[in-house]
This record gives sequence, structure tokens and C-alpha cells, in this order.
Amino acid sequence: MQLVFLSGGSGKRLWPLSNNARSKQFLPLLEAPDGSMESMVQRVVRQAKEAKLDAQITFATNAAQRDSIINQLGTEVDIVAEPERRDTFPAIALAASYLHFAKHCPDDEVIVVMPSDPYTELGYFQTIGRMAVQVQRDAAELVLMGITPTYPSEKYGYIVPAQTADNTAEALPVSRFTEKPTVAVAQELLREGALWNGGVFAFKLGYMMSIVRKYIQSSSFEDTYARYKEFPKISFDYEVAEKATSVAVVPFTGKWKDLGTWNTLTEELSRETIGNVLLGDTNENTHIINELDVPVFCNGLKDTVVACSPDGILVCAKDKSETIKKYVDNLSLRPMYEERRWGTYKVLSDLPYSDGTRALTKSIMLRPGKNISYQLHHHRDEIWTIVDGEGLFVLDGEVRKIKRGDVCIIHKEQLHALKAITELVFIEVQIGTPLVEEDIERFDYTW
Amino acid sequence: MQLVFLSGGSGKRLWPLSNNARSKQFLPLLEAPDGSMESMVQRVVRQAKEAKLDAQITFATNAAQRDSIINQLGTEVDIVAEPERRDTFPAIALAASYLHFAKHCPDDEVIVVMPSDPYTELGYFQTIGRMAVQVQRDAAELVLMGITPTYPSEKYGYIVPAQTADNTAEALPVSRFTEKPTVAVAQELLREGALWNGGVFAFKLGYMMSIVRKYIQSSSFEDTYARYKEFPKISFDYEVAEKATSVAVVPFTGKWKDLGTWNTLTEELSRETIGNVLLGDTNENTHIINELDVPVFCNGLKDTVVACSPDGILVCAKDKSETIKKYVDNLSLRPMYEERRWGTYKVLSDLPYSDGTRALTKSIMLRPGKNISYQLHHHRDEIWTIVDGEGLFVLDGEVRKIKRGDVCIIHKEQLHALKAITELVFIEVQIGTPLVEEDIERFDYTW
Repeated sequence: MQLVFLSGGSGKRLWPLSNNARSKQFLPLLEAPDGSMESMVQRVVRQAKEAKLDAQITFATNAAQRDSIINQLGTEVDIVAEPERRDTFPAIALAASYLHFAKHCPDDEVIVVMPSDPYTELGYFQTIGRMAVQVQRDAAELVLMGITPTYPSEKYGYIVPAQTADNTAEALPVSRFTEKPTVAVAQELLREGALWNGGVFAFKLGYMMSIVRKYIQSSSFEDTYARYKEFPKISFDYEVAEKATSVAVVPFTGKWKDLGTWNTLTEELSRETIGNVLLGDTNENTHIINELDVPVFCNGLKDTVVACSPDGILVCAKDKSETIKKYVDNLSLRPMYEERRWGTYKVLSDLPYSDGTRALTKSIMLRPGKNISYQLHHHRDEIWTIVDGEGLFVLDGEVRKIKRGDVCIIHKEQLHALKAITELVFIEVQIGTPLVEEDIERFDYTW
Repeated sequence: MQLVFLSGGSGKRLWPLSNNARSKQFLPLLEAPDGSMESMVQRVVRQAKEAKLDAQITFATNAAQRDSIINQLGTEVDIVAEPERRDTFPAIALAASYLHFAKHCPDDEVIVVMPSDPYTELGYFQTIGRMAVQVQRDAAELVLMGITPTYPSEKYGYIVPAQTADNTAEALPVSRFTEKPTVAVAQELLREGALWNGGVFAFKLGYMMSIVRKYIQSSSFEDTYARYKEFPKISFDYEVAEKATSVAVVPFTGKWKDLGTWNTLTEELSRETIGNVLLGDTNENTHIINELDVPVFCNGLKDTVVACSPDGILVCAKDKSETIKKYVDNLSLRPMYEERRWGTYKVLSDLPYSDGTRALTKSIMLRPGKNISYQLHHHRDEIWTIVDGEGLFVLDGEVRKIKRGDVCIIHKEQLHALKAITELVFIEVQIGTPLVEEDIERFDYTW
């Protein structure tokens, strides 16, 4: 079995912890069984393994999330990053092409596609196992997971099973789909035995590839990747589920939540506070998450969430946490903290010059053995002060060893690279105009 | 008339905006008549001038506050900084010695001593004028201001006037003092016509100097200053007011508040928000003060104060704001932001080395024409990256001009100084062990 996790979204609803560079599924806020903290993607991958599904895992994602996935899951998962953001059908089509061309999976291999951020339990993954059995038995071209509804929600899509005499069947044939109904319609759907569409799809690889070939006839993954824009911008539901000649649904009854707002997320936090927090003695149902070094003091709060990160500070009544997105969407700030493949950086200061332009100071951490690519900037000088560790610094082809206290001065147009021997920490001051991440030209370098 | 403002205190109750380097009276949170923001000390000095008291102003303070006073009030006020913290009597005795020896004020000059942080109105300063008249007429050795009480408070000291047939008298003889009574006693005091002791004392300089000479016989201010520890650690109330043979009180009825907690301070703020704040649409009686560059978003809050500074973040129900001090007293953090005579600095990062020691990164602003003293450090290197402006850098006696993009590398034991030609902004990385402000040796340098 091949398990494909869909990982996208900017997750502005969990601002300031999530931003364009760190979606909600990468926030290390959940408690793992061993007491350490894990993110939503780390949790689902752990659960998939615990369910002994004997599945290989591929993440279908975008370029911005690649580094976060590698940092959090290492090399045990494959990553297919779409070259541009389109919709769920193209993303799944690209992942299928990868499994077909690059991993040489056979046409009758079962593929299960699922979101990377459901907060759920082992039974969910056992249901996936039962869906795979149905696909193998050719019960239908497409097998979906149907979540047993707990209330007539307006937020979800519904899967309506066809009437069947055999209620003990493992898979029910699907009669139709209904998107986000009114409460009245939802109540009617519940009476009909409808299930929530949890976005989990199982099918044989050959079936999906036959649909892929309707848009791109290709003989390699690289070619499909290069022609990615030829896929239509359409969801998997519309392009595949709605058009399939036979669809079945396997029900799942159990814990299943979207931790997409502070209100729902804090319900699942095992601790009231994370980080440097000082609590007064009269807080009630209040959660405080502090990613800053300085302390947060709270007292006399009720039903409130406080979240602090280098991007900003949130103080919000929990029942208002759904309103965050519309306000925060107007903020067009650069991320002040990012996890990258090679390590992390934090913006310390973004000072105005007297002439209105700006100077940027970052604290950068490079993991042992990792390097920053050989690069140059056309519009800025960079000055690095090495604070800790040892590494190799290359400037216009000349290599020198650097350590704590050393200074690297890189003028614009000078080629430079840096490799950490031990964990390397340095302060970077960028001076120039304009100061944008895009002012970078990369070159090959052999270490 | 000589007006002496007493300025001390660490003001932990207004954490995180106030700290040991910035007491509450220097926070620029009040709106001046011209719409600009002013601090408590700027407000009282402005009001004293508006009352046309024809008074020269001296601040009796400590070394830590000297730079803040110069920055906020310029050179229009004199400053007497005690060499060590003792109590109010020694502080006032030192200020009196300064007026006697250094300013050569005559013995019959009227001195009025008052706190630097009352939130009050013009009538208060007009009352000071009437107190001075009483001192000139020798109505008593010591004339106090009595605030007409508005409720039987347990927090204040009370002045009980002697029974007098003449209720229209400008000054009433004082019968006794009572410190912080119970509510029941306070109610009785109110019936007796007692007044709150507002800590405003008026006397002739010669009277005070006769008390000073009981402890230190001296012929110069410098000598008195050097012998400061010979003054007893005692309050002015106990040493002078309680022992005086004749004390009179001049009543003041009007606005008089101590803005010493977030609850009382926010009542007087003209704006709900200060700084980079994004407000949702359902906040009620909530004040947000943000001194950070990143945004604060608040929604669904009621009767709450949010305050953010480089030192930390406070989120507190207003009626719990008196509890802050006991929690924050346990924080023994260095100030992350300071105003100095020469400019300001902010700690950007306090990174741990792999061996457990630390590296400190600061952003420093030096005002035009100002300089950092010629100094050396025994335990740290400093690396300065000039971000904006022009200046003169001295290293072991060699002067060079520096500007944006230049780097100054200062090894331990190297003598260095810096003077700003235009406003100079630079990033300082300190590397060494231990990293403490005390690792500094200062030398003379003639620019």
C-alpha cells in the first residue's frame, strides 16, 4: 500500500504560530506518548506506523513545505512537491505519476490519499486498512472513508450511501455527494444515514493513471512535472469522485477533529502553558503558548488563548478565534522565523535607515554537516559574526575555516557559501537596497 | 522658589514597560495638550511651568535614572543623584546641600519637595504656590500639602489638623500624623477633617540645612556627597515632619491619582491602543500597549490590559493588575531595553553557546554628537556592524571614520570609543565569558 499525505495550506487561523512558511500541521504542540512534543504530521505518521498498515509514505506538498517535512520526518518519507499551487486533483495526479514512473509501483497497487492534519485515533488507520481490502477486491473504482457524523454540521461535505439491505457490509455503495448543506438539509441527510466526507480516497494506481493520461501523456515523472500546468485546476472530488462509475464508502466511527482554530486546538493540548510563561493564580480555561525568549505573565483570564511568536502576539477569547484569519490576512509581513532544510533563522531586527530603506539582522543556525548554497547577491552586503561552532567559509572560491568570534564580510557580487562542521550559529547583518529574499543567484559548489 | 522632585522606585507594578532601568514615571504613555505623548515627569514639569511658580527645578534621584531624566527633560532641570540608595531624608538632605553649596541659594529661599509622579491638575501647583507663601510668612517650620480625601483609604498616610475656629485659614496647624489606618479608623479620621499626606513638603533652606548639619558638618557639596552614607536610613516623614516644632497643612481639593498600577494608569490613557495593534471588533474596556515591532492582535477581551515590551508580555485582568509585582519580583532578568545619556540600546538575542555560556547581540543607537566612553573589556570581544549613519571610531588610540557597512572588531583588552557624527545605528555582538555589563574599564579621551 502507498499512503499519500496531502500537505498544503498556509494556516493563518493559527497565527502567529503558523505563517506562510510554517503551516499548522508542523507546529510541535501535541504531546506524544513518550511525553515529547510532536506536530500533526509527526502524529499521523506515527499513528499510521502503529496501525501496521505496511504502507510506504509519500507527501504531496509544495516547495515551501519541503524543508519542514524533511526536518520533522527525516528521509523516511518521500516528497513530491508541486512546482506551483493548483488544486487537489493535480497534486494527487503528480503523486500518482511519481509512484508510477519513479517508484515503479504496479498498476494494481492500492493508493490511499489522506489529509496530513486530522486529529484522530488508531481506528481511523484501521479503517484505511479495510478500505484497501475493498479496493483490492474491486468493490469499487474508488473507496472513500465516511466519518459518522456527531451533529448536523454545515461545514462538511456529505457522502450519501445507497439504500442497502445489508447493513453489516464492510463497504456501502455511494448514491451521491452533497457539499456543505444548511442545517435543515444536514438533519435530513443524517436521517438518510449520510456520512461526512473526510477526504480519504483509496484506489488502484492504474485507475488513477488512466485519468492522468487524459491530460498528460508522458513517459517519465520529470516530463509530467515539467508539464504540471497542463493539469486543470480542479479538486479531486469534482474530477474523480463525482465522475467515477462506482464509488463505495467505508464508515469510521471515532475521534476525528480538525485542529484548525485555536479553539479546537487548545481542547487537545495536554498542558495549559508551553514555553516561558508565568501564571497568576486566577486563570480559568486559558492556554498560553510562548515561543519567545522573554516571559509572558497572565492573570485573571478566562476562556482565553495567548500565543506569542517572532511573527506577533495573539490574545483572543477562544470563541472568537475563528475571526483571526480575516484580520491577519491583511498583514503582509515577512515570516520572522523559518525552518529550512539546513537549519533555522530568526529575524532579530528590521531597522529603518535614515533614508527610509532598511537593514535586516538575522540569527542563523546551521545544522552539523549542512551547508548554505554557493550564492551571490546583487544588491546587498552581508556581514556574519560567528557566535558558536565551527565551519568552512568559501568566498570567491577561497575556503577558510571559521569559528566563534570570526567575522565574514561578503560584498555584493561576491560568491559565498558556508558549511557547518559542528552546529554553527551566526548573526547576519544585511545592508543594501532592496533587501529581499529573491536577491539571490545560486551556483554549484563541490565541498 | 526651588522645586525638588523626588524620583526613585523601580516600578515593577507596570512591568513589562517599567524595569530597574526605566521607572514608571518615564513611560511616555500620557497625551500632552499638543497631542504628543509625554511621561509622568514630563507632565509634572510642564504643569509646574504652566502654573507660573517661578521655580527652578532639581531632581533628587539615583544614578540609574540620571540618563532618563536628561533624555526626557534636557538640561533645563538640575539633577542630584545619590551615590547609593538610602531613604527620602538622605535624598532630600543631599538635594538641600546641593542648593546650599553648589547653587548658593540663601537660607530663606523656599524649598518645595514633591513626588515626580502624581497625576494631578493645575490647582495642585497653585496650592504649592500658597504653601510657599505660608513658609515665607513663617506660618510654620514645615508646611505640607493635604489632599482632601475622597474615601476612607487604607493606603495613605493622614494629616490631622488641630481644631481651629477659622476654617477659612490658608494653612491649618497640624495636630498629628497617622500612617495607613484601618478602614474604620480612616472613617473616624475623615470625620475629624483629616487629609491625605501627598508627600509635598515646603520649608526654608536654612531650616533643612540645620538638620543636615546634625549628621554631616561640611563646607562643600562634594564633601557631603562623599560622606552620604553618614546620613541615617530614615524617611523625611520620621526624621523631619514628626520632629518639627510647628507644622501646618494647606489643603488641596482636586484630581490627584497615583498611576502606579495598570488599572489606574489605563483609566487615564486617551487611546485604547498604543503601538502596532490590530483590534477585533468585540473588545470592551481593554487597553493594549505594544512597544515591539511585530503586531499584537486582540479580540473578545473585556476589562483587560495587554502590554508588550522587549522585557516581556503582560496579559492581565485590570482588577488583578496589583498582583503583578509579587510574580515579577521573582524575574531576575537583565533589562532588554535601556535609554542612556548617549542614546538607546535593545537586546536582540541572548543565544546559548554549545558549552552553556552565552552570546549577546544588541542594536545600539547613538545620538548625533554623543559618544560612548573610551573603554576596554577584559572578558569579551565586541564586533560592531555599522547599519546607518557616520561616526568616529577609536581603537587603541587610532581614529578612523566609519559609516554604513563598516565593521569594527574589538578584541578583549583593546581600548575603544565611538562618537556619532550623524545618528549612528549599529549591531553589536558580544562574545566572551562572563558577559556582564560590569566588565568595563573606562578611560579619559579627548575628542
